[in-house]
Amino acid sequence: MFKLKVLNNDVLKEILKMEDVLKMIEKVYVLKAEGKTELFPMVFHEFNPGVADMDIKSGVLNDVDIFGLKLVSWFGENKNKDLPLLVGTTLLFDSNTGAPLAILNAEHITGMRTGAAGAIGAKYLARKNSSSLLMVGTGHIAQFEIAATLIAMESIDTVRIYDPMHNEKSVEYVKSIEAVLRENFAITRKITFLPVTSLENAVSKSDIIITATPSKEAMIKKEWVKKGTHFSCVGSDMEGKQEIDENIFKDAILVVDDISQAINVGETEMPIKKGIIKKEDVMVEIGDIILGSKKGRTSENDITIFDTTGIAIQDLITSKLALDIAKERNLGITIDL
Amino acid sequence: MFKLKVLNNDVLKEILKMEDVLKMIEKVYVLKAEGKTELFPMVFHEFNPGVADMDIKSGVLNDVDIFGLKLVSWFGENKNKDLPLLVGTTLLFDSNTGAPLAILNAEHITGMRTGAAGAIGAKYLARKNSSSLLMVGTGHIAQFEIAATLIAMESIDTVRIYDPMHNEKSVEYVKSIEAVLRENFAITRKITFLPVTSLENAVSKSDIIITATPSKEAMIKKEWVKKGTHFSCVGSDMEGKQEIDENIFKDAILVVDDISQAINVGETEMPIKKGIIKKEDVMVEIGDIILGSKKGRTSENDITIFDTTGIAIQDLITSKLALDIAKERNLGITIDL
Repeated sequence: MFKLKVLNNDVLKEILKMEDVLKMIEKVYVLKAEGKTELFPMVFHEFNPGVADMDIKSGVLNDVDIFGLKLVSWFGENKNKDLPLLVGTTLLFDSNTGAPLAILNAEHITGMRTGAAGAIGAKYLARKNSSSLLMVGTGHIAQFEIAATLIAMESIDTVRIYDPMHNEKSVEYVKSIEAVLRENFAITRKITFLPVTSLENAVSKSDIIITATPSKEAMIKKEWVKKGTHFSCVGSDMEGKQEIDENIFKDAILVVDDISQAINVGETEMPIKKGIIKKEDVMVEIGDIILGSKKGRTSENDITIFDTTGIAIQDLITSKLALDIAKERNLGITIDL
Repeated sequence: MFKLKVLNNDVLKEILKMEDVLKMIEKVYVLKAEGKTELFPMVFHEFNPGVADMDIKSGVLNDVDIFGLKLVSWFGENKNKDLPLLVGTTLLFDSNTGAPLAILNAEHITGMRTGAAGAIGAKYLARKNSSSLLMVGTGHIAQFEIAATLIAMESIDTVRIYDPMHNEKSVEYVKSIEAVLRENFAITRKITFLPVTSLENAVSKSDIIITATPSKEAMIKKEWVKKGTHFSCVGSDMEGKQEIDENIFKDAILVVDDISQAINVGETEMPIKKGIIKKEDVMVEIGDIILGSKKGRTSENDITIFDTTGIAIQDLITSKLALDIAKERNLGITIDL
């Protein structure tokens, strides 16, 4: 019989602070660069192409003594059933004994770790004095990207919001985001939020651009981009997705979360397929930058790109953080399995 | 928020009757033969070769509206830690919505479905009047094989027990098995149990032989085997394992649970690698036999072999059965995830 913690979204929202998740995601990138993690092959299945699919991502964190998996399913028809389209479940195990440790709802953790990822790209690759952020996309993930980046970079005082599908949504988003950041992330510092009508104009004014949309074609053109801009490309995590002009990659400094995933399913996929860069050009992971073993930005004029596809070990380390806090504070229920 | 059932071994032992599991495993073999199931690629990882590993087997049962996975780990050093060496956890999901339905300890279910598999091989391939069973192996799985086969075949009145490592263990096993079968499986009919000292002698006297050992070399020689014998080979489920002489396959009728797994990791692997049979000779799955769409035994003289490697859909359908019963009888706890 094993004792497992059950951590649902209510408990996880109470437990996880973005400040702590940022530290964990930096840590796991470093562990990866040091060869102390492994990603297992992904399992992907389409129940009905374009209608319903699922994937199982798994891996091990040797230094943290855990392994586990996240199963995420997407059922498009759930929108008619009052159910979430994306459903995620994480199982955490002890890598010294194989004992199951916890079952977690993966939704909130996915938001937190994805936000942290985009922000860490900005922290290590954007110009240090960056003051303006452009958020492209107003979906569920946007609040996590904005919160994490504001926490990771104190210099930011302006956030522009762009909705690629419905311009008017960015106006609504701007109205509500301050309260969301205060209530969900305890962010109270004075920030100017601006809705964007002209993406071209907003791009040319922004130091940091985070894209988090399901787009399948480039929204941001190369000629709009000013020198020194940093991109954190979050949306592309499946074959065929693209958010920014592949030509931006030509002279940019490219850093990824995982080389193999970036090449196959990340924002990096299209520039390679279209011959702008070569597979061999993709050779720096963010952990190398954090460790200082490889170079990122070299001047104020560089354009930098962080392509983050999302890796299982981010979910596992954040889940482990949540488990440790839950145990310490006696939160979440415990089951006998 | 999702409502999940938690089913541990105590509840599962109360819920699952071998008679019902036999029906479910037959059903899932038929569903597989009808193309209504899919097995996803297996994930396998060795933390430390020969010391610790884990695998994730997953799949979908379209007709039963579930998908899911079983993660099984093996940590050899757990024997010094008062922990089970094998630990298994199953997650069950709704294949219409992706909603998680249950988390189950996989240990007892694995025993039940593995016992049922060996027995179903005997039921459909052994001679109808078979009266004697030889059980090779006295590990955890043996009681499930014996129980399921006695339930599936009323004609059996003699069970011989052989322990390939320690001869004296079979004597102890014979002393205790009657009580085990009565208490765990409600089997009360009069059976003669005999410990085996000479495997050669026991093989020559047995109508049905079930092998369930971790052996890596053939224990049973071809010249010992009488005409009409049926083998259910349960132990081989990884590359390099072997329990019976590869030459037995030469003139035998071979039926497997899954062609691809049997060729790669089953008892069928070695006869192919040693050139006794060809990959193309492996073409009948047990579901085809149950359905009647392909032929199994054709005469009383045939030697038949059922190579069962164990497939995820067996675990999933048995888990679904347990979940349905648990809901109906209000057993197991329910968690909010």
